[in-house]
Amino acid sequence: MNKINRVAIIGGTHGNEFTGAFLVKKFQQFPEVIQKPSFETLTILGNPKAFEAGKRYIEKDLNRCFLTESLQNPNLSSYEDIRAKQIAGVLGEENQPKVDVVIDLHSTTANMGLSIILGNQDPFLLKLCAYLSEINPLVKVCYTIPEKGSNFLRSLNKLGFVIEVGAVAQGVLNAELFQKTEQLIYTILDYVEKYNQGNIPKINNLLSLYKFTGTIDYPRNGNGDIQAMIHPDIQFRDYAPLNPGDPLFLTLDGKAIAYEGTSIVYPIFINEAAYYEKGIAMLFTEKQLINFD
Amino acid sequence: MNKINRVAIIGGTHGNEFTGAFLVKKFQQFPEVIQKPSFETLTILGNPKAFEAGKRYIEKDLNRCFLTESLQNPNLSSYEDIRAKQIAGVLGEENQPKVDVVIDLHSTTANMGLSIILGNQDPFLLKLCAYLSEINPLVKVCYTIPEKGSNFLRSLNKLGFVIEVGAVAQGVLNAELFQKTEQLIYTILDYVEKYNQGNIPKINNLLSLYKFTGTIDYPRNGNGDIQAMIHPDIQFRDYAPLNPGDPLFLTLDGKAIAYEGTSIVYPIFINEAAYYEKGIAMLFTEKQLINFD
Repeated sequence: MNKINRVAIIGGTHGNEFTGAFLVKKFQQFPEVIQKPSFETLTILGNPKAFEAGKRYIEKDLNRCFLTESLQNPNLSSYEDIRAKQIAGVLGEENQPKVDVVIDLHSTTANMGLSIILGNQDPFLLKLCAYLSEINPLVKVCYTIPEKGSNFLRSLNKLGFVIEVGAVAQGVLNAELFQKTEQLIYTILDYVEKYNQGNIPKINNLLSLYKFTGTIDYPRNGNGDIQAMIHPDIQFRDYAPLNPGDPLFLTLDGKAIAYEGTSIVYPIFINEAAYYEKGIAMLFTEKQLINFD
Repeated sequence: MNKINRVAIIGGTHGNEFTGAFLVKKFQQFPEVIQKPSFETLTILGNPKAFEAGKRYIEKDLNRCFLTESLQNPNLSSYEDIRAKQIAGVLGEENQPKVDVVIDLHSTTANMGLSIILGNQDPFLLKLCAYLSEINPLVKVCYTIPEKGSNFLRSLNKLGFVIEVGAVAQGVLNAELFQKTEQLIYTILDYVEKYNQGNIPKINNLLSLYKFTGTIDYPRNGNGDIQAMIHPDIQFRDYAPLNPGDPLFLTLDGKAIAYEGTSIVYPIFINEAAYYEKGIAMLFTEKQLINFD
């Protein structure tokens, strides 16, 4: 692979995810902390209007606006559709000067620690992730393939990925997570610098890759009203194995509902606030071990 | 004091505070769990439109709409102003049949445990709070006097108070907090039943009452942009004493800012998401001990 010349860091793609938005604000105020000898680092505040309003989005979810057809459709003219086209104009694979790596910063009310979410299994990204998870056990790595094309910002770029940190409430800036995410970004930039110098660190451990297999909604009645909550046994236990028969939900009147699958899954994004409207109580993943020998 | 004939439980006064909203939904589905021999319990979903939308409010904060002048002002016609007038029509002191006790259920991103917030020091309420905090150390009791009149829902009624539970993200239903709040409500209803029977439990301990003394905003620059976060040492440490010189904030570039007051305070509502727009990083309280001998 060629040298990496430009890395882009995006925060506040969702306006109420403050960790990334304030990190971008910090990097714009103190640009020297993200500059490296062999490449340029640029920063973008993803959804400035939504950040200003303290909301996920103004009209529609910006991180669902990046399908190629949508970006090419002149009739899509919501604030977020226009913003997506602007961002794609900077980060798209074909634009010049080319951005080689895109880091999209998100946060979640689920206990995702420092998660990296990949949309492809490019060897550069897998090795980077293996390195990051080896030196920091809070780092977990997920892999999600969208059903048809991808409408995520990270899909603009082959070396695009998400850093998803939590648990943190929407609209809250948590100093501890801010600093942990900041350190993770510095480690990534150091890794890119080493890569450019032909000096990438050796990986000793297997990489645990959590591959998305499906979603499950909250139990609802005929009107769509939620009838059960995430069971306390699994709340904040993202990435822990869920066995057939384990408690999954708890009804409002206190009855446990078991996981009825036939194999172990590893739930992630458990009880993410923004996913209630999407009909998602959690995502299921399966765990795969990747060897770099 | 006279017998208590009617108790009202309000949830979802803020639409994205799911604990109370879903408790009200449960109580409406299973009304038998809140019925007692000597009094009636009614339930109200405070802001149904905001709950449906998963937002704190639609046009303005409903829990700031209850100033007497506002309720009497026919020109105030936002969704929340109209809703406030409807709620006041049921809960106001002069309405018949009279509601004697109002319990307004809220949640917060601050680590407030199970907090009870009083707007007056009626002896019935103080004894109830002393009893609740004696049997459950998670229960804390605050007292706030508004600057001019009161625009809070709880102020509709002399025996009105708030239960404020956290830490929980906005737009998230947390089963553990749901069940703890539910048990607290049952204990309150049991206490009212005992009171009506002339049989209220004896109080052995002093009551710690945290009295509101002021607020402090996040450090901001000339444009109003936040320049510092809640210091990690005090995040989630609501009700812990803060001494002069203790770290209070942490700037984006990692410098601690100390608390500059001259006396110990007990911060509450530390890093509440909804208070960013109100210019409040936390509330300061002083601690008072009340004896019931």
